[in-house]
Amino acid sequence: MPMIDPSALRQLFDEARTHNAWRDQPVPEHLLRQLYDLMKWGPTSANCSPARIVFVQSPAAKAKLAPCMSEGNRDKTLKAPVTALIGMDMAFYERLPELFPHNPDARNWFAGKPEVIAATAMRNSSLQGGYFILAARALGLDCGPMSGFDADAVNAAFFAGTEVKVNFLCNLGYGDPAGLFARSPRLSFEQACRIA
Amino acid sequence: MPMIDPSALRQLFDEARTHNAWRDQPVPEHLLRQLYDLMKWGPTSANCSPARIVFVQSPAAKAKLAPCMSEGNRDKTLKAPVTALIGMDMAFYERLPELFPHNPDARNWFAGKPEVIAATAMRNSSLQGGYFILAARALGLDCGPMSGFDADAVNAAFFAGTEVKVNFLCNLGYGDPAGLFARSPRLSFEQACRIA
Repeated sequence: MPMIDPSALRQLFDEARTHNAWRDQPVPEHLLRQLYDLMKWGPTSANCSPARIVFVQSPAAKAKLAPCMSEGNRDKTLKAPVTALIGMDMAFYERLPELFPHNPDARNWFAGKPEVIAATAMRNSSLQGGYFILAARALGLDCGPMSGFDADAVNAAFFAGTEVKVNFLCNLGYGDPAGLFARSPRLSFEQACRIA
Repeated sequence: MPMIDPSALRQLFDEARTHNAWRDQPVPEHLLRQLYDLMKWGPTSANCSPARIVFVQSPAAKAKLAPCMSEGNRDKTLKAPVTALIGMDMAFYERLPELFPHNPDARNWFAGKPEVIAATAMRNSSLQGGYFILAARALGLDCGPMSGFDADAVNAAFFAGTEVKVNFLCNLGYGDPAGLFARSPRLSFEQACRIA
């Protein structure tokens, strides 16, 4: 396989930014579906695919979300065309007979083991969160991922009666560059990596 | 921004597969550096960037890794040109004065709070793992991510004397399609998502 086009690399990585201000341009539903239909292909351990997503878009749902947000994230979240709640299904292993047909025993790697369940759900729903962000950017959307919110309140407002717990949130839309912060530095290869 | 080229979408998502068999073709060091220099731009909360990576490549380092692998992952890991150990620095917050200059207080959001540290390190190093996998694919590499290994043994063999703990492993190289399993299904949009 060749390298993908340099302009696509820049769109996905080098030049993409976390957005805080949003243009008044809606995100059509077909793009949300296309976004999921890309990210779903990213690998997870035993194909466990724990991520569950609520795309918060209606004024009523935004009003339910507002009191869950930290002060610094509330206003931009209300203004974003869509806020995706990236959750993780803590009962993900019940789907393994369907999702991992290679090994009919896979459910038993997790059932009754709360620590393995918690680590697997968090690791893999976060991996899927990475796929989500890059799939959104690949489709021409801008992202504003956030960890500053009251998780218990989000769970009560959007995931009551399910085994899903929120992991992180991500505003989606078309960013207004006027709202960008100065770009923060990154660790160098030598600071973060070594070859052994 | 436009959508990236459909062939790039396929290379990153739809047609990419988790590889188990590897062609005898080395991965040059400049590609490993380019891979890091792409993935490092992916967003993390407060730019905390906890991922730390060891690219295991030499016969000596592979020999150290072999006994840490689960039976089913050992042989393919020995045959992969490179095995990346994706770790997370549990002291990531010590870098925040440099990485998050917006707020000089950011270190104190974490210092002395082991549960917040653990959740933030796992969530964000896994997000970065997602960026890693897609950056590798964007560069024309194939990936074989794995959770089947003895984490304590990997930590002792490769991260002794540091605050880094392994998160997951990922073989890298040029995959041999003969080693692919049949593709497992994914949850539909309706099974995994809703619009509110």
